[in-house]
Amino acid sequence: MKIKNFLLTLLFSGITFMCLSANLNAEVMLDPMASGDEDYIALLEAQGEYAYAFDFFTTSMLWTVIAAALVFLMHLGFATLEAGLTQSKNTVNILFKNVFIICIGLFTYALIGFNTHYPGDGWIIDGWLAFGGEFGYALTAAGNADDTFGYGGVGLAMTGYGDFIFQAMFAATAATIVSGAVAERVKLGSFMIFATLLVAIAYPMVGAWHWGGGWLGSLEGGFYDFAGSSVVHAFGGFAALACVMILGPRSGKYVDGKIKPILGHSMPLATIGVFLLFLGWFGFNGGSVLSANPAGVGLVFVTTALAAAAGGLASIIASMLFLKKPDLSMALNGILAGLVGITAGADAMGAWAAVTVGAIAGVIVVFSILFFDKIQIDDPVGAISVHGVCGIWGTLAVGIWGGANFVTQLIGTLAVSIAAFAFAFIVFGIIKAIMGVRVSPEEEAEGLDLSEHGQAAYPDFAQS
Amino acid sequence: MKIKNFLLTLLFSGITFMCLSANLNAEVMLDPMASGDEDYIALLEAQGEYAYAFDFFTTSMLWTVIAAALVFLMHLGFATLEAGLTQSKNTVNILFKNVFIICIGLFTYALIGFNTHYPGDGWIIDGWLAFGGEFGYALTAAGNADDTFGYGGVGLAMTGYGDFIFQAMFAATAATIVSGAVAERVKLGSFMIFATLLVAIAYPMVGAWHWGGGWLGSLEGGFYDFAGSSVVHAFGGFAALACVMILGPRSGKYVDGKIKPILGHSMPLATIGVFLLFLGWFGFNGGSVLSANPAGVGLVFVTTALAAAAGGLASIIASMLFLKKPDLSMALNGILAGLVGITAGADAMGAWAAVTVGAIAGVIVVFSILFFDKIQIDDPVGAISVHGVCGIWGTLAVGIWGGANFVTQLIGTLAVSIAAFAFAFIVFGIIKAIMGVRVSPEEEAEGLDLSEHGQAAYPDFAQS
Amino acid sequence: MKIKNFLLTLLFSGITFMCLSANLNAEVMLDPMASGDEDYIALLEAQGEYAYAFDFFTTSMLWTVIAAALVFLMHLGFATLEAGLTQSKNTVNILFKNVFIICIGLFTYALIGFNTHYPGDGWIIDGWLAFGGEFGYALTAAGNADDTFGYGGVGLAMTGYGDFIFQAMFAATAATIVSGAVAERVKLGSFMIFATLLVAIAYPMVGAWHWGGGWLGSLEGGFYDFAGSSVVHAFGGFAALACVMILGPRSGKYVDGKIKPILGHSMPLATIGVFLLFLGWFGFNGGSVLSANPAGVGLVFVTTALAAAAGGLASIIASMLFLKKPDLSMALNGILAGLVGITAGADAMGAWAAVTVGAIAGVIVVFSILFFDKIQIDDPVGAISVHGVCGIWGTLAVGIWGGANFVTQLIGTLAVSIAAFAFAFIVFGIIKAIMGVRVSPEEEAEGLDLSEHGQAAYPDFAQS
Repeated sequence: MKIKNFLLTLLFSGITFMCLSANLNAEVMLDPMASGDEDYIALLEAQGEYAYAFDFFTTSMLWTVIAAALVFLMHLGFATLEAGLTQSKNTVNILFKNVFIICIGLFTYALIGFNTHYPGDGWIIDGWLAFGGEFGYALTAAGNADDTFGYGGVGLAMTGYGDFIFQAMFAATAATIVSGAVAERVKLGSFMIFATLLVAIAYPMVGAWHWGGGWLGSLEGGFYDFAGSSVVHAFGGFAALACVMILGPRSGKYVDGKIKPILGHSMPLATIGVFLLFLGWFGFNGGSVLSANPAGVGLVFVTTALAAAAGGLASIIASMLFLKKPDLSMALNGILAGLVGITAGADAMGAWAAVTVGAIAGVIVVFSILFFDKIQIDDPVGAISVHGVCGIWGTLAVGIWGGANFVTQLIGTLAVSIAAFAFAFIVFGIIKAIMGVRVSPEEEAEGLDLSEHGQAAYPDFAQS
Repeated sequence: MKIKNFLLTLLFSGITFMCLSANLNAEVMLDPMASGDEDYIALLEAQGEYAYAFDFFTTSMLWTVIAAALVFLMHLGFATLEAGLTQSKNTVNILFKNVFIICIGLFTYALIGFNTHYPGDGWIIDGWLAFGGEFGYALTAAGNADDTFGYGGVGLAMTGYGDFIFQAMFAATAATIVSGAVAERVKLGSFMIFATLLVAIAYPMVGAWHWGGGWLGSLEGGFYDFAGSSVVHAFGGFAALACVMILGPRSGKYVDGKIKPILGHSMPLATIGVFLLFLGWFGFNGGSVLSANPAGVGLVFVTTALAAAAGGLASIIASMLFLKKPDLSMALNGILAGLVGITAGADAMGAWAAVTVGAIAGVIVVFSILFFDKIQIDDPVGAISVHGVCGIWGTLAVGIWGGANFVTQLIGTLAVSIAAFAFAFIVFGIIKAIMGVRVSPEEEAEGLDLSEHGQAAYPDFAQS
Repeated sequence: MKIKNFLLTLLFSGITFMCLSANLNAEVMLDPMASGDEDYIALLEAQGEYAYAFDFFTTSMLWTVIAAALVFLMHLGFATLEAGLTQSKNTVNILFKNVFIICIGLFTYALIGFNTHYPGDGWIIDGWLAFGGEFGYALTAAGNADDTFGYGGVGLAMTGYGDFIFQAMFAATAATIVSGAVAERVKLGSFMIFATLLVAIAYPMVGAWHWGGGWLGSLEGGFYDFAGSSVVHAFGGFAALACVMILGPRSGKYVDGKIKPILGHSMPLATIGVFLLFLGWFGFNGGSVLSANPAGVGLVFVTTALAAAAGGLASIIASMLFLKKPDLSMALNGILAGLVGITAGADAMGAWAAVTVGAIAGVIVVFSILFFDKIQIDDPVGAISVHGVCGIWGTLAVGIWGGANFVTQLIGTLAVSIAAFAFAFIVFGIIKAIMGVRVSPEEEAEGLDLSEHGQAAYPDFAQS
């Protein structure tokens, strides 16, 4: 009943905090005069409410929240992809984990994640360690969360709330990546605790190294990771690797040194998942332009789409050549590989470079999935290969075609990946020691839906 | 064959009307000079086509139509949620009802709903009773449906067409809420007639009390219901309650005073539904800012997302504590409860107040569902609790944390709920007297898909 | 192994090209001064970065990429609709085809499609035959793909990249339409080759007649096809007709002159598909305004939504009257028929004309589906009727209510339809002669999932 105590504590501390904070209602009136930009104020005074800087800002902010909504939809994409690629007896469990992750991710990002991620001058160890900063800063009136003109120019234009919601939707992604890799045998309560710590603490701490103005920026040439091939995807992928190593493979996956495929139960669900992820990536990458700058947004849409297409085609070709069949799962993973690959440099290279990056990612992912299967790292959805390996590839590719320093890219992506692996290895290991991380063989055989939730995903249909 | 005659009448009257109206093609050229705003015209004359008020208006109008598209997607969310939470023998029926509802909702809103909802000075009994007004006003050239500057400032900026399409997507929601509650035993033809009357007449009539400038605005402090916790959700929820009371529970649900759960047939469909509803709510609440005002849009996205997350977490915790299992259906309903709860005050409170409202809604919905089950009100999808009860809660919450008058909020939400209940009780009762509202026990046992539609949802799969 | 060679060739030529092009990274800095518009430059100099034309342009470009994302989502809609309306033994195959189509469509549109579609002055036979033009023009720095001010005014405002990505998402649609019609018996490799040729060459070549400044524009009054009732939908529909004629019906569909229905395996998937297509159509039609002009965008959203609703209602009524049951498949096809019908004139007629066009399309589609079934043209998803027949209807309707010349509309739509049919008949016929287009009867009976892919869509569920 440890999970129950954990949740009770969460609930009561949450309510206490809320009662203290609930009356700090944000001011919702627009006060452009507060911008402090004298030129702008002069223009405003001459031209009134409709002055044009406000218009560019308005459009950019609109794009920010729409992009946030698209990234939100990626969580449905992950949920259906992971559910589709696993067995029907574990479907409720996977859906539940994904529902929990988006909820806890948004909540903890408001509570501590946002301020850890962007510590401002609140670093504990400068450039390396941040935690929380001014508590709840961005979300109270004191934080001027709806300030309109606190940011600058065509390169960055959104309110504090816009910034928060866009980044909050990203935050839960890392935990979702892990969710797929540990599916079908992880203990629910243990995973919920791990995911909470990962998303609340580890993700924003490591992310602050890059996006929060930390040490990665001071490397030669500056570490370049546009929308997070490293700080989101490789981070999630290598955290997943550590968890899978601790957890071990599913029963019956590797028998007498042979690989026995465990089939996903619904290819339509998996396909829906990948299309939704592809769609959501337009927000993930496109929104990372951080304004509606038409040059940047247009380029990013094109590089993102073409890398995904090239990844899908390359995986299809590779699977036809090497697996001797047109494999739908590989085609789907190829699209995702292309998307992860282009994420670091989507704004830093042209269309044909994007095609190249995506195509290579689409080939890498096929061999990576075969490799991890061979060394008996059991990753039901291929998350380690798609997000981890291709995340590293994408980061390095900016050092080849995107004008970044290759060595810096290598250092940065390895640092992030190792940090994620180490955090997950230690924390998931501690959880294992305290309460265990794996269901019993009987529960695994019965399926987590009945053993953990007492609820079947498809009670009307006969199993074959 | 009454339904056939009804439909034939609808068809012929429709065609007659269309033939009269089809040539009233809207002017699609932009004529900003028609705004009548002299200051603006002076600016335009000085600065030409690109003058900046037009830019803010353009962005706002873009947000309006995108928000309309997001609200449209909620209808897919409802369709999959309702289908997922019911049995596979009634799936075609549920999908058909939802397809019908969005079609008839859009059509009748164009025909009479829009003008009933916003009667202008066309009230029959001032502030209380409106119907139709200038027929088809908003949708003909005479209505200046594409006028650009008929609205004012940063608080309201869209064309007549934009206003129409956004509100039209809302209109069908009320009927959809009822659809889930009466699922698995309602007669198709009877439901189609009821839903048509509800969406065409009752919804805009009651909505006009609030959004059309009716009597709720003249209460002390003014009734505050930002995007419709009361006038959309509680309205739909209490109409559903009346229908369920008239209809009675599904056969086999309550046997010898005991509750026998009837399981939903596809938890992936249900989960897809809730994620799409969550996504669509960004349009539902965000679009209700009625412009792209960045301060308002940013705040509303944040409060909406955090209330949903808090609702989900609170339901998860409540179901673990009181149902002794991590229940996916409850987690899903908790998210929806949080969303319904924040709808009335999404622009009127800060982030932590939103978390509080959502968390309380997430607890309320668990107990409300248990309560209605206990008193044998059989609501297969929990619509009465999610939309009805949490709709009232959300409206009251604005009186606690959103600066509204609590008593006014109480009067307003009860008035709307009672009106919805009364309309549904009378109209659904009349339909019952004339043609019956419930299928025969044999049809119910066989499933509505075969008995009403002659078509199975999953002909390839064996039933368990 | 022909398919293998084809793919190898594609891979190697692709890589060669990429290596040549990958360093042509696009400039991503915004240079508004490059517009050459002296008035605008003067304004910029006076007002700096935030000048207002830039704002309108920014909003329009944002709408363009969001519309592209919505059109992208239509491919998921097609995938789920086609999967849902066919048997579960062919689901992996259908999903694979749709995944392949979006990937190859985006890739070839970048490679040759965009320049064929919009040849500028690169016609081979003026107004009739274009191919490629300046190779990769739009996608290299030389093409100024991110130029901001190369377009004009409120009627057309997007960067080169924006134009490309929006049109690229359209391009694959034509092949997707064919995919549904030939489902459940076409050979995968043959279809992949055909689809590649259709989307890379035929679609942009014929499209250039209209959108590329070709001969259709010089007909009396000018051919009017706003978003492509003819050049996208009828094109795809009549290409599908030719393929189905060459391919023949599915085994067991027509036995002793009688029609034996082959049921779709998942009505929820089909319904999800239609809702996503409906949603995506707001981008398909709305984005075709080619700017965020609020008058145009508002009108197009309203006409699109009302035509869809009217199409759905008319099909429901028609199926109740003539098929004696409320048929969900017909309701879904009615919505699509209304959408295809309004596509040619969505910006050229008012709301009631749109309702009329949609309602008539909804009736047409019912009879057209019955007609093609009667003459034993076996189209599992009704694509020929929905896209082909209603595409022609929609184009003609602009000659009735949209102010276009009826005879010109008739000539144009027939020319496009005949060209599509002829191309498909010849090319698919050649493929048939060389490598066959149809799987063996044994493979068809077993299902394409196992015979072509060695992978079942639903391995956990028992077949009935």
